[in-house]
This record gives sequence, C-alpha cells and structure tokens, in this order.
Amino acid sequence: MFKQMLLSGELAQHVGEEVEIRGWLHTVRVVSANLAFLILRDRQGLAQVVFEDAEEIKKLEGCLLGTIVSAKGKVAEMPKGKFRFELQKGSLNVIRKVAYPSPIDISKEEMHADGETLLEHKVVALRHPRQTKIFKVAAIVEKQMRAFFDANDFTQINSPKIIGFPTEGGAEVFEIDYFGRKAYLAQSPQFYKQIMVPIFEKVYEIGRAYRAEKSNTSRHLSEILMLDMEMGFIDSFDDVIEMTERFANFVVEKTWAEAEPLLLALGAQKPLLVEHFPRISVTELHELMFKETGEDYRNERDLAPAEEKFICEYSAQHWQSDFVIVDGFPWSDAKFYHHQNKENPEIADRADLLFRGVEIVTLTQREVNYQKLVDQITAQGQNPDHPGLKHYLDAFKYGMPDEGGFGLGIARFVQKLIGLENIKEAELFPRDMQRVTP
Amino acid sequence: MFKQMLLSGELAQHVGEEVEIRGWLHTVRVVSANLAFLILRDRQGLAQVVFEDAEEIKKLEGCLLGTIVSAKGKVAEMPKGKFRFELQKGSLNVIRKVAYPSPIDISKEEMHADGETLLEHKVVALRHPRQTKIFKVAAIVEKQMRAFFDANDFTQINSPKIIGFPTEGGAEVFEIDYFGRKAYLAQSPQFYKQIMVPIFEKVYEIGRAYRAEKSNTSRHLSEILMLDMEMGFIDSFDDVIEMTERFANFVVEKTWAEAEPLLLALGAQKPLLVEHFPRISVTELHELMFKETGEDYRNERDLAPAEEKFICEYSAQHWQSDFVIVDGFPWSDAKFYHHQNKENPEIADRADLLFRGVEIVTLTQREVNYQKLVDQITAQGQNPDHPGLKHYLDAFKYGMPDEGGFGLGIARFVQKLIGLENIKEAELFPRDMQRVTP
Repeated sequence: MFKQMLLSGELAQHVGEEVEIRGWLHTVRVVSANLAFLILRDRQGLAQVVFEDAEEIKKLEGCLLGTIVSAKGKVAEMPKGKFRFELQKGSLNVIRKVAYPSPIDISKEEMHADGETLLEHKVVALRHPRQTKIFKVAAIVEKQMRAFFDANDFTQINSPKIIGFPTEGGAEVFEIDYFGRKAYLAQSPQFYKQIMVPIFEKVYEIGRAYRAEKSNTSRHLSEILMLDMEMGFIDSFDDVIEMTERFANFVVEKTWAEAEPLLLALGAQKPLLVEHFPRISVTELHELMFKETGEDYRNERDLAPAEEKFICEYSAQHWQSDFVIVDGFPWSDAKFYHHQNKENPEIADRADLLFRGVEIVTLTQREVNYQKLVDQITAQGQNPDHPGLKHYLDAFKYGMPDEGGFGLGIARFVQKLIGLENIKEAELFPRDMQRVTP
Repeated sequence: MFKQMLLSGELAQHVGEEVEIRGWLHTVRVVSANLAFLILRDRQGLAQVVFEDAEEIKKLEGCLLGTIVSAKGKVAEMPKGKFRFELQKGSLNVIRKVAYPSPIDISKEEMHADGETLLEHKVVALRHPRQTKIFKVAAIVEKQMRAFFDANDFTQINSPKIIGFPTEGGAEVFEIDYFGRKAYLAQSPQFYKQIMVPIFEKVYEIGRAYRAEKSNTSRHLSEILMLDMEMGFIDSFDDVIEMTERFANFVVEKTWAEAEPLLLALGAQKPLLVEHFPRISVTELHELMFKETGEDYRNERDLAPAEEKFICEYSAQHWQSDFVIVDGFPWSDAKFYHHQNKENPEIADRADLLFRGVEIVTLTQREVNYQKLVDQITAQGQNPDHPGLKHYLDAFKYGMPDEGGFGLGIARFVQKLIGLENIKEAELFPRDMQRVTP
C-alpha cells in the first residue's frame, strides 16, 4: 500500500527530508533538458516536484495526464511559491502510463467546458481538485448530520425504496416492473419514519428518494439523498423547531470546523448563525415584502420564490442570521398528515427553514389521532381503506404519541453551504429527465 | 418533550425517588380493586408500575395494548423480581387511548404467529421488545462500519441507484419506466466505487442494492443494504485481505462493546476472533472436507453450501475463529473486472470471507490495465463499446492505480451476528417476490 509514502498534505512536517509521494500526473512543464516541473495529484490535493536531472526528465516523455507515478525528492519550503512546499532534485517512477489524451482539461483552475460536457465526462471531471473538494465537503456534511442524531439518541433506520403503492397520492412516481406487477420508487420515507416512532421514539434516515417531476431546472434532480427525522413524545410543535435549530447550528459549526480549508478554497462563506433563528409568519412576510419592495403577495397563501430570496437577504442583514424560519402556513394547503394548530385552526403546525434564498427543510407536527387522520384523508378525497395507507394507519390505530419531524434534501444544503449555482454540482452522478449516465 | 421524565433504563440511578416515566401500555394485570400491575414500554425496554389505589386502577379500564400513558411512582429495587426496578404506589395519566385490540400479541416473550402474519403486521410486530433489539443492534452495526472506514481515511460516497444500463450483464435487474424510456435499479455500486478511486483513493458506500432473483428462500431479499468499499494504491491483494480482517474485528468488537446487553438478551454469542483469519484454498477445502466427512467435492470448482458450513464449524473448533477466509477461486469463474493471479494464472485474486456457515464478503483485486480489461470483457462475450461500460472503462483509460475492494450484505451479517434463522428477520420491511408491503 505504498505505506512509506507521504500524501501531499503531509509535506509540511517533513521539510529537509528525502521523501516519496505518489498519485496522478496532473501537469508537466519541461523548461529545458535539465529542468522540469511535475504537479502530482493525490486525495489531499496537489504537490510539485522539480526535476534537474536529464535522465529523470526523459522518463516524463509521453506521460499523459492521469499517469500513475511516484516521485522521490527533498522537501523544501517555498514561502513565495504557488505551492508552499515542493520536492526538489526529484527522481521519478512511472507506474502506469496513460495512452489517451484526457477528454476534458482538469489541470487548470477552472474547467472550460459546458455543463453537459462536464456531466458526460463526470468520471474524469471529478478528478479536478475543485470537484474533489465539493464531494469531500458533502461527505463531511453527511457524517456530521449522523453525528448530531446519534448524539441526541435518535436511532438510524433504513426503509425500503420499492413500495407497493404510491403513498402520498402523487402522480410523480417512477413505476417498476416488480416480478411482473407494478411497484413504485418511494418519494420519501415519510410513512416509514412515522411507523418507527412507536419503536425507537426518535429516528432518522439518510437514504435515496425519487421524484419523477417533469422539470429540468437548476433546482431539480430525479434521485436525491434525503435526510429525514421524526421524534415522538413532543410537548408541542416548538420541540420540533428547537431540535431543527440545534441540528442546523451543529451541522454548520462541525462541518466548518472539520472542512474549513476546503470550504475557503471553494469560496464558501461561513453562514451567520444565531441560537434561535428569526421566525416570521407567511402573512407577516407578505407585509414586510410589500413594505420594503412594493411587491404585493398579500393575497397569496404560499411563499413566492422572490419572497424566499428577500427574507433570507433581509434576515442576514437585519437579524445576523443566514437561517430564517417561516411559519403560519394555511391549513387549507396542509397535507393530510399535518396537524392543525389548536389556537388558530386557519393554520397548520408547519414551518419552513430557509437558508440563503431557498427552503431547505419543511418541518411539521403530525396528526396522531387515528380517527382525525382518517377524517383528514377522507376530506382530501383519498380513501383511508386504500392498501397503500393501511399499514401507515395501523401505526396510529395501535398507539402513537404526539410527534413531528422534518425532511431535508442534502444536495441542496451542500449547494447553499458552498454557494454552488446548480444543484447538479452537488450530486456525484446526477439524474434528471435527460440523464441516467454515467 | 416530557423533559422531566425518565426512561425505563434510567430507574437504577433513582432508587427511592418519586419519578415519572412514559410510553406504551404493554400489559396490565389487575389482581384486585386495590392491586394492579402495569408494564410500560419505551425505547429502552420495559418497566413495571404497581398500583395500590382503587382510583388509579379504575383509569386502566378499557386501556388496550399500545395506549400512551405516563405513570408516577417511587422507584424500588426488587432483587428477586422479573424487573430489577419498579415504580411503587403508582399514579396514572392516560394520554391517548387505543380503541382497537392489537392484531398480534406482542406482550409475550415469544410472538406466536407464523412468518407471513408477522410480516403482514410488521408495523405492530416491530414493537415487540425482541424485534426492537434486533434493529437497534442493526443500527449499531451500521454505525460501527462507518466508524471503521472514517477512522481509516475512507471517504463516503453516494452513487445513483437508477442506472441507464444493466451493467454487470445480469438478467436479474428491475426495470423502471424512466420518463418514457427504460432504466434499471442498480445491483451493486461496483462500477461507481471503482470510478471514485481516482478521486478519493479509498471510498465506501452504504446504500441500497436490488436483485430481481426469482428465488424465495431464507437467504434472499429483493432490496438489500450493501456495504461496499474500494481502496487504491494497494501493493498486492494481501492489502485488501488485511483491511477486511481489521474491518471484521473492529465491527464485531465495537458492536459488542456498545450492544452487549441487547446481544445477550437476543441469545447471541460473541464471535471467536483472531487477528489474522485462518485461510484455506478451495482445493485444500475440498480435500479437507473429503478427509473429514467423506463428502467428495474435489471435482467442483466452487464451494458447496455444505462446505461453507463445514469449514466454519471446523474453523471455530480447530482454529478458534468464527471468521475464515477461502481463496484460490478458479480464474475460469472470475468476473471480467477481477484480477488474474500472477504466479498462478489458474486462479483469480479473489477470496470469500465466511462467517458462521455462510459467505458474507467477496473481496477481490481488480484488473486496472485498460487494455487487459477490454480484452477480459471481450473474452466473456460482452462488448466493451456498450454504453453501459463506456464510463466505467474511462476510469481505467485515464489512469487507475492498483486497487481492490469488497461488498457485504449488512442484513446477512446482522443475521449471523445475532443468530437469526431467516435473513428477513434482519430487515425492517423485507422485500421478496411476493411482498412489497408494508
């Protein structure tokens, strides 16, 4: 395993020593027969090796980008160089040559190729240091999300993604040929996580969800990674809001602590955090928007995308928070499993968490009274005896405590944390209406 | 959130104190107008409350299993009781009554219902304390698997499960209607994890995999949770074997340390562990089997299920190890991405890790030379220009170090760790040929 070899990020601790590093040939610049520079890439980044020996420089002939090499040299600190440390008086070992020129150039700071070309050559594009950093951050975000829930005594579950019936009544589901009959890909683990509350009380799941939406925008993916949580024995909806605030603060703080060099290199700015996020109702937001911008949404029930953007900018400026909570959504728009507010039956116990211009989390308290739930299903024109609802309803029929939870698309969170233009940049191999490869 | 309330497992620290607990009514036994016993279930287990007040006992009338209650009482230690601690002089608060009798009885030590009935009523069956323990163990196993790879500098990835082409040439794939054309559910993340080696060098994924096998046995599921790992810059296949040994030891030790009370309550026995697992070739195993049992598989190329069982028992008895590695699999049976052994071209660089009678991990070194890989694909009658192979092959065309990895079905590992009869017992909501609900 080349156990004796260093990684590019470890050179600082070995100044003056003769060491060996290994990785992919990233660029080569041959200045003369007696001077050449090689930049080598490994999982930690880039490292420069300087060759001053004609024999060593000859070995670089015909070595294309991606060639697997190792290089020995003496580590020198270069305070003014592009690379703070480099290997000098290098000697080279060419391990496996690449015979084909790369279809896209990953050796420059920016990849100059259009979006579709980058997606088509994602296998190579991901080797670009910027791409590698994005998905390293994504891995850290996911790890810290798990760490939060593990530390708060939630139990992780894995619910099936093949389901017998489209459960939330949606038309936008993918159909599968399941041993000759129809089955479907789950749009969310909503029903399963609720079913698990009477077993583990507090559960979370990180898993795939599928949306057959006929939209191809910078906001849409057909296959996403969802974080879902559900918590039982709440006193009120405020418990769900408080857990969400603690979650968002924890994940941002911990990710930033672990990944700060990556995030700064990606041009990310640390989110403005406060312990309790500013909270505004839909109605208040309509009024504020009208007052501040003249745009009038006061007759709308839901938020306009322009309002999401506005309130996030307003919050950052006036409330020093990049997170903002919007509540007071109308009961008339609620899903059948939502809980109606007791003091004000016009609204649902629902809130959206907004982050840098978009909604990233929807959190609600759930209706847990079996008969009320049956009534709400019926009122929305669905049949509570439908086999797709039977098992879900059993969870309530046989005893459910007061509960609530949230769902969050991880790629969108990563996109906004880093500041990426398109959600597809935050998914390793994105799926949309056109694309199912690579 | 009932913040002041205790959980059943916390009573030991509060002997002599007046406390409150909450959860689901599990059983009630009314002895007389002045004496009743209630067993309450929460996420940690069961707790007993003794009522001696006629008014309190009256409240229990009509309370069916699953009713949400809280109970106050004084904690007493009962060294000889079935419950080591109980609440005495209880008072009751009925929070939400259940009006329907449970379809299966979860209040006894064993659930007396056949397998299909239990699967049909899984939503309630999971509330049985034994079921809850199984999936708590499964959650801990998964957490410890992640902990191992995180500690060893692997990066977690998430590859798509909707793919454009069945990749490993298999017939046993599920077909999806993907916006009017055909797509498929991934059988494994094999290609994606290899593609990611030139980005992160060491990667792992825990995700769903789909097998449309027309078998309905105690070993089959249509949707499984797979752990996959892949590591680059190996010196030889031995590096993969060594990582697998360290992985298995870590996961068993750490899971046992965290979950010992659960595992003992489930009747599990701690696996016999050694640092380096005993290793035997297929040929040697045929010989040993013949010598010890008279059963003759010496003309077979692969292992018979009887041999897997035999060698595991033999290993436990003679080598004090519940894990055993079988290697020396014939090259003629290898997949196109396997690596041919250099010293002995008759065999592949492949091994199986066996645990308690079955194969749980297949580990191999991969062929990474682009041209050899193309030749091996062609030799197996597949077309290297097929669009389902193009992106995969690009990973090798543009530079791949020596690498290898493994795949493991998590439910099978959990099944064997605990000692469950059927793999379906280790999956929350199993999917098979017949069943896509709940």
